Amino acid sequence: MRGDAHFITFEGIDGSGKSTQARRLAESLADRGTEVVLTREPGGSPGAEEIRQLILTGDPGRWSAETEILLFTAARRDHLERTIRPALARGATVICDRFADSTRIYQGATRGDLRALVDSLHAQMIGIEPDLTFVIDMDPRVALGRGLSREGAEQRFEDMGLPFQETIRHGFLRLAREDSHRCVLIDGGREAGEVAAEIRVVTEGRRAANDG
Amino acid sequence: MRGDAHFITFEGIDGSGKSTQARRLAESLADRGTEVVLTREPGGSPGAEEIRQLILTGDPGRWSAETEILLFTAARRDHLERTIRPALARGATVICDRFADSTRIYQGATRGDLRALVDSLHAQMIGIEPDLTFVIDMDPRVALGRGLSREGAEQRFEDMGLPFQETIRHGFLRLAREDSHRCVLIDGGREAGEVAAEIRVVTEGRRAANDG
Repeated sequence: MRGDAHFITFEGIDGSGKSTQARRLAESLADRGTEVVLTREPGGSPGAEEIRQLILTGDPGRWSAETEILLFTAARRDHLERTIRPALARGATVICDRFADSTRIYQGATRGDLRALVDSLHAQMIGIEPDLTFVIDMDPRVALGRGLSREGAEQRFEDMGLPFQETIRHGFLRLAREDSHRCVLIDGGREAGEVAAEIRVVTEGRRAANDG
Repeated sequence: MRGDAHFITFEGIDGSGKSTQARRLAESLADRGTEVVLTREPGGSPGAEEIRQLILTGDPGRWSAETEILLFTAARRDHLERTIRPALARGATVICDRFADSTRIYQGATRGDLRALVDSLHAQMIGIEPDLTFVIDMDPRVALGRGLSREGAEQRFEDMGLPFQETIRHGFLRLAREDSHRCVLIDGGREAGEVAAEIRVVTEGRRAANDG
């Protein structure tokens, strides 16, 4: 087992700033000479990006929740094999914008009984967990205002509205409580530079602790 | 449980004539006033056909066996939800050219340890088995000669060559022996009309037995 923080994920509701923060941490580590692979889900490898297109384009109701979970798992397996594992194997740090936690929380919020299915498929087909997960917390009213100004496929998630985003927020807060060794809860409602500085300090602290 | 032969599948190596025989049985049942849904895998519903394109186009090595099994399972789940279950629910007969047995035999032939994964995902995500499966047996040398004259995505399977097709043939023969209640082994090396007549008689026999 690697004890070091080599596989780092960012989670949170849409518009919480996690993509910005993932990029800023990647830049900060790269500036210090670390090889960083910045990636995202769904997607992150050529095959997984094709599956992402299947999931995120077209009529939002065209896949059942179960089929969608299978497609997310297929994309994650490809991403893991083609991008994440090769990068970790050569000693690079992988920073990923969303990972399995998003599937757990979003599908679990859609229908509670799906959480067990997501967990079972994860155990069978993926196995790996991040060393460190930043859960960026933000009031959905603020996040939705930010998120809706962006274009693209994520619109379909944002279209689900404020009550759904509240459910997702609480899902992530519970995750951060229940898996407090891996997850660090970050207040995303502050200026982006301040948030980035806290994330940098936490990451360096984890790495120093594991070096010592 | 339906005891009747309402969900009928055709299995066998490429070029064995199963698509022709599936169509001929569908026509024969339709001629007698039965509502028949003739379908195929991978594919069989709009979403599953999109996943089929992902699996069958592009570089044959671009998906790992595990990712491919997840994609096949996602396609099958969609096919089941959108085409097979609604048809069975309204009393139609579903005739399907390839189903889960193909995934079991082909993936199992690629790597023996994958069979358990295919079975586990089938139990979790699909559940249903056909009422009646026709396993069309044929010498691969004859079948390859037929199959290679066809165009299309199946080419990638045919490209795998004679020793692979021999392995697949024996996989299907074993399946027919092990699941002899569901599977009927048909000698496909005869004239198509003769094969079709035997399949029609077997199907009518199953239906009559269950009516009686």
